[in-house]
Amino acid sequence: MRFVTHLESAIDGTRLDANQLQTVHQDRPLWVRYDLEGIKKHVDRDALAAREATMWRYRELLPLDDQVSPVSLCETITPVINCPQLATDAGVREVWVKDESRLPTGSFKSRGMTMAISMAHFFGVRRVALPSAGNAGGAAAFYAARAGMEAYVFMPEDTPVINQHEAALAGARTFLVNGLINHCGAIVREGAEKMQWFDLSTLKEPYRIEGKKTMGLELAQQFQWKLPDVILYPTGGGTGLIGMWKAFQELTQLGWLDSKRLPKMVSVQSDGCAPIARAYDDGERFATLHENADTIARGIRVPAAVGDFMILDAVRESGGTAIAVPEEQIVSRMQTATRATGIAICPETAACISALDQLSKQGWLSDDQRIVVFNTGAAQKYLEAIEQPLPVIDRHQPLDWEFIENGR
Amino acid sequence: MRFVTHLESAIDGTRLDANQLQTVHQDRPLWVRYDLEGIKKHVDRDALAAREATMWRYRELLPLDDQVSPVSLCETITPVINCPQLATDAGVREVWVKDESRLPTGSFKSRGMTMAISMAHFFGVRRVALPSAGNAGGAAAFYAARAGMEAYVFMPEDTPVINQHEAALAGARTFLVNGLINHCGAIVREGAEKMQWFDLSTLKEPYRIEGKKTMGLELAQQFQWKLPDVILYPTGGGTGLIGMWKAFQELTQLGWLDSKRLPKMVSVQSDGCAPIARAYDDGERFATLHENADTIARGIRVPAAVGDFMILDAVRESGGTAIAVPEEQIVSRMQTATRATGIAICPETAACISALDQLSKQGWLSDDQRIVVFNTGAAQKYLEAIEQPLPVIDRHQPLDWEFIENGR
Repeated sequence: MRFVTHLESAIDGTRLDANQLQTVHQDRPLWVRYDLEGIKKHVDRDALAAREATMWRYRELLPLDDQVSPVSLCETITPVINCPQLATDAGVREVWVKDESRLPTGSFKSRGMTMAISMAHFFGVRRVALPSAGNAGGAAAFYAARAGMEAYVFMPEDTPVINQHEAALAGARTFLVNGLINHCGAIVREGAEKMQWFDLSTLKEPYRIEGKKTMGLELAQQFQWKLPDVILYPTGGGTGLIGMWKAFQELTQLGWLDSKRLPKMVSVQSDGCAPIARAYDDGERFATLHENADTIARGIRVPAAVGDFMILDAVRESGGTAIAVPEEQIVSRMQTATRATGIAICPETAACISALDQLSKQGWLSDDQRIVVFNTGAAQKYLEAIEQPLPVIDRHQPLDWEFIENGR
Repeated sequence: MRFVTHLESAIDGTRLDANQLQTVHQDRPLWVRYDLEGIKKHVDRDALAAREATMWRYRELLPLDDQVSPVSLCETITPVINCPQLATDAGVREVWVKDESRLPTGSFKSRGMTMAISMAHFFGVRRVALPSAGNAGGAAAFYAARAGMEAYVFMPEDTPVINQHEAALAGARTFLVNGLINHCGAIVREGAEKMQWFDLSTLKEPYRIEGKKTMGLELAQQFQWKLPDVILYPTGGGTGLIGMWKAFQELTQLGWLDSKRLPKMVSVQSDGCAPIARAYDDGERFATLHENADTIARGIRVPAAVGDFMILDAVRESGGTAIAVPEEQIVSRMQTATRATGIAICPETAACISALDQLSKQGWLSDDQRIVVFNTGAAQKYLEAIEQPLPVIDRHQPLDWEFIENGR
């Protein structure tokens, strides 16, 4: 049982066959299209909610035939946690954090990779490659290990050290490159023919987006089919934002939503790397490359995104916005937001917390809104952002309680 | 609604009042006792299984009044993942990994801390302290932040760097000490009066064990109330093993188990720090301090455990064993087990994989058994164990595909 009808070029609507492995059309991404009427007849929303609490409960809305076992590490539904202190701090009514660090490998990247590797495995792929500036490389490596595939990962040399070594731990051939993610992507493209690997880069194959879509499906169900008013989402390659917006369209067509309006989608970047926010401000549908891109939020250090128009379309259709926050706020916002919530807030999400404050101050938000922020990965994976000198106690000396009281 | 009847000294059975905050009795731990007959009348096992998929679904078997909100970060049920390659590698029939890295803060320590901090919060505690050689300090810091409590964490100076900095990120006053966890514990004890903090050390208060107990409750339910035959568990302070064994006793008394026998509990340590394995071999009920304790599996670098007799009693009652594995195998087993499963296997769990091989070779295991190994935390939190030199590519030079093919 599989409800996929075809693949569709996002740039010009060309139909492509979904029964073979596809990549891009005119160098731009593909949508997976479904027989939504068929799904509607086959299953209802309450039946989905009663299934095992993993992203695979939404099987009819995913591209893998339900007779085929996915390459899975058990992608449990991530919790959405009410954070009243965060709301108070920002001067808004209600803020929830959806904590994606609770997925395999500690980040939201697992959603896309379980789906993409499941499909690649189904189509007989034995070797995959991708560029990654953060959590994607690790996620790909672990799912490739689970599938018994070879993986090649190319990372900027200043990728967080944990991301570098987790990919290697999982057995991926992991390389550091003196450049940014787009330079790493060029190596993957160049090697496609020589190395016979399948390119798992963001939006270079149609299925990672379908995995990410489950963030939107889960959110709908967790809020009893009434979507939140605003979603703040850190934007690198944009698959998550695009995927969620696609989920909301599909849920609308299925008639499963009880809310009248869809959420305003807010794309958040750092002013150290803000191609989408700039294009939004300039009224453009396509972004230009952000020169000398840099941010400690490595996952959103993506100077050029192949799905730029898809992100910008979603933001505009939703009545949302795209915003760049000051780079220098990110580390301190990680601390304040973690302490306000008890959740290990990653740097990309800390940018969203800055955006929340900024939009609240500007009056862009209203006080009757339910706001959701995605914590895309575990803060523990960012040693570079959490490292700080710690006070030392010599146990052979008498204890200085004043020093201990003050923490220094 | 609360089914706790009293607290009971584990060393001599003395009854203590459960309506006030207790610590230890004669320096030894306390059990929480319940009106199991009352629970049996009030709820059945299928009702529990239908509740939200968090450890709080077992509310009747936990010490917090069900009218009181726990200090929680949404402790979702952790998946138990079938790992056929691991079974093949070890020459056994069936191995499952229960992946505790999927809890808040990326480790099993969250189970104990959500429970202990909820109870401390209920009893009005405003400041907590603990020694930690690994994940416990971080977990305590995050739950303390969630509760708005002050936390003081004392760690050996060679504690994994991620554990050090996660505690500080969450706002705990975090100190490095030139010693081992028992030296850190001495500071916490010495400060109790001067600093007016509550001691959250392993088994120095009765509730962390009740949180850890949920590992056993989940396992029972996940295997349809038929417990596995063997459980391999890495042992530092031992709360997890003790807690699970307590869960199995309570489930037996409730009549909820369909299996005839309880699992054989295997306590796993490194030969770099093996007080429990030594005491087991020597036929002792109490362990002696392991001098110059060292292992890269920092979570089991506990040279003296206050609950030693509780661990050894559980191991013996269950027909299990206690085993020390060669320290030098741990890092390589992390790699092989991670690659065989796709799960980020931590050093403590890698010791269990070594033990699995060893017990299989010795003929201690039989080929009709279902074996469960606990992955107690995310491998990504152990930079020191996963760090390795990675090959570098200069993007300004022509690509060397042979170098890339071979990963070096």
